[in-house]
Order: sequence, then structure tokens, then C-alpha cells
Amino acid sequence: MKLVNVGTVAFDSIETPFGKAEKVIGGAATYISYAASLYTGDIGLVSVIGDDWPEQEIKNLNDRGVDTGGLQIKKGEKSFFWAGKYHQDLNSRETLATELNVLADFKPKLPESYKEARFLMLGNLTPEVQISVLDQMKEKPLLTAMDTMNFWIDVAPDALWEAIKRVDVLIINDEEARQLSGEYSLVKAAEKILSKGLKYLVIKKGEHGALLFSDHHVFFAPALPLAEVFDPTGAGDTFAGGFMGYLADTNDISLENMKRAVIHGSAMASFCVEEFSLDKLKKVDNQLLTGRLKEFVDLVNFEIDLT
Amino acid sequence: MKLVNVGTVAFDSIETPFGKAEKVIGGAATYISYAASLYTGDIGLVSVIGDDWPEQEIKNLNDRGVDTGGLQIKKGEKSFFWAGKYHQDLNSRETLATELNVLADFKPKLPESYKEARFLMLGNLTPEVQISVLDQMKEKPLLTAMDTMNFWIDVAPDALWEAIKRVDVLIINDEEARQLSGEYSLVKAAEKILSKGLKYLVIKKGEHGALLFSDHHVFFAPALPLAEVFDPTGAGDTFAGGFMGYLADTNDISLENMKRAVIHGSAMASFCVEEFSLDKLKKVDNQLLTGRLKEFVDLVNFEIDLT
Repeated sequence: MKLVNVGTVAFDSIETPFGKAEKVIGGAATYISYAASLYTGDIGLVSVIGDDWPEQEIKNLNDRGVDTGGLQIKKGEKSFFWAGKYHQDLNSRETLATELNVLADFKPKLPESYKEARFLMLGNLTPEVQISVLDQMKEKPLLTAMDTMNFWIDVAPDALWEAIKRVDVLIINDEEARQLSGEYSLVKAAEKILSKGLKYLVIKKGEHGALLFSDHHVFFAPALPLAEVFDPTGAGDTFAGGFMGYLADTNDISLENMKRAVIHGSAMASFCVEEFSLDKLKKVDNQLLTGRLKEFVDLVNFEIDLT
Repeated sequence: MKLVNVGTVAFDSIETPFGKAEKVIGGAATYISYAASLYTGDIGLVSVIGDDWPEQEIKNLNDRGVDTGGLQIKKGEKSFFWAGKYHQDLNSRETLATELNVLADFKPKLPESYKEARFLMLGNLTPEVQISVLDQMKEKPLLTAMDTMNFWIDVAPDALWEAIKRVDVLIINDEEARQLSGEYSLVKAAEKILSKGLKYLVIKKGEHGALLFSDHHVFFAPALPLAEVFDPTGAGDTFAGGFMGYLADTNDISLENMKRAVIHGSAMASFCVEEFSLDKLKKVDNQLLTGRLKEFVDLVNFEIDLT
């Protein structure tokens, strides 16, 4: 299998200054799968849902080449639910409800075919669950990436660091990088975090772009300046999905290709925020993607004589 | 004359988390002149000081090729003084003191040789003062740029718009762009502001880089991720100085050259914040600048196949 991704599959209720969406399809693994499946068809999804989950939504994933053999369905239980409200500037949000439901005692179980995946993406979950997935792999993937959140930095730092030390790429946002490192400067934060053994650190800065750090390099990908950001939900996971999907398809983890992967992730995230839920991602095809990538190239393109 | 710049020449007292600097040399026109004079020697400075200003500091400007024939010295009066304190994140500051002194009734008077300048930079001052400079020009410069601040947007919007309509480039920060346009999205803000007749709008986003908007293009220049930002005072003016100095030297206002000018401005600003006052700018030579420009090129450089 080219890419396995582990994370939440959820119902979201979202309120933004532009409208409301009640109980729509969400979850990290859903966004990752949708974005990655534009690049490669050989994807496995590991998650858990209740029997309230629409069968059609599983079929939609399968139609995109996403295998759901690792998606547990708990009879008589309810799927994970999150409700949130974004403030006027869309940069901050408050959580209105978090109902763990099936997620409370989620024990991921990887089908045999998943255990030799070339690429592995660990979406935001408890560090213990992330580690249990790593433990199930038969071979170390060519590249493993993980996400986390401020809550786990607070309540489970030891387990979190144990997980981080076992992966190649950590993909987090600027506030998480600061909290995890205790450094305000992202350059210093990156130095500290990379020193734990990671190959790459990606720091997402939302509307301000994303930074890719390796031991001796820093690369910056801008965010596309958009006239309208409709709903930021899932943008970070969509970034991770585009990033990992591109890498899994090209099977190349050189620095130059990681840079391209960051641009692809940024391009996919720029689509995600244009509509609620997966609405826009469902419409993205290769032609739309190529046009968007061209906008990124034009955005930062300059020629300067350095002699 | 290649470049005339108008703005404050001031004493600053600055407190950052890293230290204090009492009554050091500052002011928009000072930073603009220091940055621009790395590019071209034919610069005129229009401002006002008291007789408390050190003669050596005037000599320092002259030594850099900055003509001070437009610098009024008011006998028995004190120079403009600003004191401020930066918060831990260096992104916000509070003003501890503003003593206008000689600035209170500043009436700029351009020497004859300044009135046919090819490039004109109007640093942040009252819109009336900016307009009085425009009125004194014998010919429209090839390019005129201006800065402003939230205070003038609040108290003198009509005069401010009158000034904006007479220049080619407005250089402001993101908060000012939002306040001036009433739009949160910088893309929408730029559309609104550009519709008033400007050729270009530069929106500075501090540590998040700078955007250059024209009618049909948007260009993004990143800020260099720095391990230490020592003192942000003057960074915006240094940006404007590098931007206008590069344009004045190359005498080319095509979009491609404006992009290069934004990169040069960003590079100069990245030096400014490394030490107090003009300390770092005094040390910057062409070799240091070329190295820094190369860092900018590397930071955003990627190659992607769009076929």
C-alpha cells in the first residue's frame, strides 16, 4: 500500500461569519484521504465510526481509491462529533462541543496489507494511539509523518515525545511549535524540535503560509492570498493530505521533493477553505490543481542578479 | 536628484525584552536614508531637528551621500522624541512618550535641486505636510511612494485620501490596510485601495512578509525567519528605504523590478531588526546584502512541473 493514514472520521457542526453547516462530514482522516486521493489511489484509512455514519460516505471514499478495511464500525454507537464557531477574523475559533463517542476507546487495528505501507500519516489522536499504529507496522515506512495538538502537549508530553522520536516528519502549527519547544522564535523552536531526531519539521502558519525545516535548510511556502476564506475547518489536515499524497505518488523524499510537497499541500489547503466540509475538495481535479499551483509559482516568482 | 525622502528625524528610547536603548538616533527619514544610501548616493533628506541634534549625525548622513540641504535646524528647540516598549512577542508595542517638539509646526521647504527628483518617498507625517511636498515638486517624479499610520486614518481621512490619490505607491502595514479599506481580507482591501488610482500597493506584514499588489498581479515576499529579532523599530522605514533606493538606482518601475525592490526592502529590514537603532545598517555593505538576498532566493526557491 502506498499511503496509510490514521485519524478521526467525524461529524462537524460549523459556524462561520458566512454561514452555518450542521453535522457535515469532517475529521482529520477524511480530509487527509480526500486530498491525498487526488494524487494516488492506493490509500488505506484507519479510524472508527458509529453505525450512524452514512454508508454513502464510505462508498465515496472507496470511489476515490481509499480502502476502508481499517475503518472500524461500532454497532449501536455514535461517531465522533465536533462543533465549533469561528470568530470574525477566522483565525480563532471556540469549540462548542466535543463528543468523543466511539473515539473514547479507539484501538486502531491495521489490516495486514497496511503494515508494509511506504508512507504513513498519523493524524491528530492521542499519542498512545499513534504509537500503537507504529508498533503494528512490519517495516519502517519510507516516511512517517504525524500531527498533534496543544491538548496532547499539555496532558501527555512524555508519550507525545516518544511518538515524535519515532517519526520522520512532524506537521504542526506555529502555536503548537512554540508550546512544544518553549521558544517563541520559530527558528529556535525548529532547532529544538529537530534535535530530537526528526528529519523534517513543517510549521503551518495558516494564512501566513508554511515553513519546512530540516537540519540545514529552511523553505517557505506562502499561503495564497484569498479574497474569501469561507471555512478554515480541515485546512491543516488537507495540507497534510496533499503533502503526503504527493510524496506517496512520487516516492521521493529528497529535500527538493519535500519542498514541492509543501507547495502541493498549501494548494490543496487553499481549496479546502473555499467551501464547507469536503464540498470544494470533491470538485478539485488535476486541471484545477495545476492552475492553483501556477498561482503559487507566480506569487513568489522573482529574478534577481546576485553577482 | 535621484531620490528625495521626507519624514521624521528623531531621538528614540526603546525597551525590548533584550535590552534598553536611551535616546538613540531614529526617525523614518533617517532609516529610509540609511537604507537607500546603500544603493545610490544622490539622496536628499527633508525634515526638521532642534539644535540638540549631534552634528556628527548630520555628517554621518552626508558621508553616505545624503544631502541635508532640506533638513531644517531650529535654534533653541528640541528634536522630535519617541519612547516605546515592545512586548515579549515583539509584534506589539506601547508608546511611552511622544514629544513632537520641532515637528509640531514643521513646514517642509524643498531646496531647488530637490524639486525635480526622479523618485520621492513621503515618510509617515501628517497628510497636509505630505501634500505640501507634492505641491513643491516642479515635475511629477517617475515614482512617488508614501507611508502613513493608523492615527491619520482616524483623524484626517479626507486629507489622507487626497495625498494617496496623488502618489503611485502606498506602503502600509496589514492593520493599516484593513483600517483604511474597512475590509478584513487583504485581497479585498487591496482592490479597494488600488481603485483610488494607485499603481501599486505594498502591504507589510512584519514577520509574515510583504505583499505587492497591482491591478492584475499579486507578489509575495517572505520575511526571513530569524532566530533573534532584537528591535523592530524602523524596520518598516528601512523596508521603504531599501525599496526606493533600489528603484532609484535602477531607474526602472516595471512590475518585475518592483518585485526585486520588495525583496531588497525585505532584506534591508531583516538587517535593521538585528540591533538597536542604525547599528546594524551602518555595518551592511554590498557583500552582506548579496548574502542576505541569496537567503531570500533559497527560502522560496522550488521547481515544479506544471505540464
